[in-house]
Amino acid sequence: MKDQKIGFVGLGRMGGNMARCLKDKGYSVSALFDIDQDLAKDLASEIDSTACKTLAEVTASADIILTVVTNDSAMDAIYFGDDNLFIAAEGKLFINCATLTPSIHVKLEEAAAKIGAKTLEGCMASSIPQARHGELYLMIGGQEAEFEAAKPLLDDLSKALTYVGPSGKASEVKALVNMVMNINTGALAEGLGLGAALGIDLEMLCKVFSQTGANSRVLETDAEDMLNRDHDCFFSASHAAKDSGIALDLGKSKGVSMPLAQATLEQYNKLCELGLGELDKSGIAELTFPGRKGSE
Amino acid sequence: MKDQKIGFVGLGRMGGNMARCLKDKGYSVSALFDIDQDLAKDLASEIDSTACKTLAEVTASADIILTVVTNDSAMDAIYFGDDNLFIAAEGKLFINCATLTPSIHVKLEEAAAKIGAKTLEGCMASSIPQARHGELYLMIGGQEAEFEAAKPLLDDLSKALTYVGPSGKASEVKALVNMVMNINTGALAEGLGLGAALGIDLEMLCKVFSQTGANSRVLETDAEDMLNRDHDCFFSASHAAKDSGIALDLGKSKGVSMPLAQATLEQYNKLCELGLGELDKSGIAELTFPGRKGSE
Repeated sequence: MKDQKIGFVGLGRMGGNMARCLKDKGYSVSALFDIDQDLAKDLASEIDSTACKTLAEVTASADIILTVVTNDSAMDAIYFGDDNLFIAAEGKLFINCATLTPSIHVKLEEAAAKIGAKTLEGCMASSIPQARHGELYLMIGGQEAEFEAAKPLLDDLSKALTYVGPSGKASEVKALVNMVMNINTGALAEGLGLGAALGIDLEMLCKVFSQTGANSRVLETDAEDMLNRDHDCFFSASHAAKDSGIALDLGKSKGVSMPLAQATLEQYNKLCELGLGELDKSGIAELTFPGRKGSE
Repeated sequence: MKDQKIGFVGLGRMGGNMARCLKDKGYSVSALFDIDQDLAKDLASEIDSTACKTLAEVTASADIILTVVTNDSAMDAIYFGDDNLFIAAEGKLFINCATLTPSIHVKLEEAAAKIGAKTLEGCMASSIPQARHGELYLMIGGQEAEFEAAKPLLDDLSKALTYVGPSGKASEVKALVNMVMNINTGALAEGLGLGAALGIDLEMLCKVFSQTGANSRVLETDAEDMLNRDHDCFFSASHAAKDSGIALDLGKSKGVSMPLAQATLEQYNKLCELGLGELDKSGIAELTFPGRKGSE
């Protein structure tokens, strides 16, 4: 796919590093856009690309456009604003990698189809170094034929690539992943918090958890941070609340009762209300360890 | 320690197999007792030991007595009944391996001290094959000197041996392990149940969970059973409710708020009320998958 021209919209730490990665791998990264024009100019000079002044220019200058924007309303703006990516977009492929409400991806796919363009939904369960080195955990929603056509490019961005189903399904799967992860994080915070209150040696307790049915990925990633109150943010409590909320809304729409997800959302909301929403998700331990701010 | 005589009280599937294991390893298993006398006789003839008619006989015939009984009241009966293990027990060591309320172990240790006997608390996070082959996951509470003295014997019963702290602490740690495990199980049931309701490919979803922050030990042990509704019992829903309840009581006594553990207990209680308490803990998925008994 290296004969195709690649555009990028949204050059934050994820999008910018994905552009760098593709450039390194020999792709022609032809068009860059960010609402912060200086960001686009700096990256353009770094990777020998072009900073576009309008979204329509990006579409005109590229065959495949990757977007990594902040939220649903930014997504609406880049596709349905006065200046937008769908202008003269026939034959173009848009790969939308922001975490959005699942239904947005369905709406985009329908709008694209009307003008002869294609979309794919990309959901990333990874962070900045993985974006830079083409090692994303990448889940794709959309038409399978489009996925197959774009596979070489997607493979170059990822170390694990999964086709999940029709548009919107990748966001649903990501919401499910984060919902389960958040509950497991809350479980760990309760287990360690009660262990602390009982005067149990917490290093030993973590080791026992790791060797028994209490083991989990979040035990590996978050337990030490909970003990040390080191809540520098990888994935914020407010993001955790947002994703658990998306999952609970999906549950409501399908009549699935999820009391553990609900209890977890309430804990993350409480953390946000205490002004601790920008802590890492491990900050939920502030609510369960004796003597910490949220436990009183 | 093979010069010491070993007695066993409680010859169910755990206790009986621990006795077989020690016999195989060259210990002198000198005294067996069970409330079901036939069980004691059968095992005695199998491993060339002696079935005792009274508890006092066990104490008289052994140096170290292991007990594996059903619950707190059975424990009270064997130590404080008319015929009991504390009769002429000076110098004896009692290792109590049933899962009990933590405070029972403290009470036993104090009573033993008054008559010159010793106790250790053993908590097992394993099942029958591990008991038979000396591969228990064994956590010990009690005085550290007693633990060190008994270590060769405990090592022969276990593949993972942890000294946890004073009497009662091993039961506390076990309650914490099971509390966290139960929450993680409930999280998985909600994630897979909602995935099913959304029409997501559940094999794919399990794979994604396993590769991301949603991974857990219960994903390995319970996910397939949840999908297949295969709830043959390894660890019952009613046991899960009991252990989460013990942990919540500990939390209450220490002022630790644990809303996820509470929500999980309520799910397991609901399962019991539906008459499904003897399902495996994976049966909690009956409450979250669309169209199943408890989801309506």
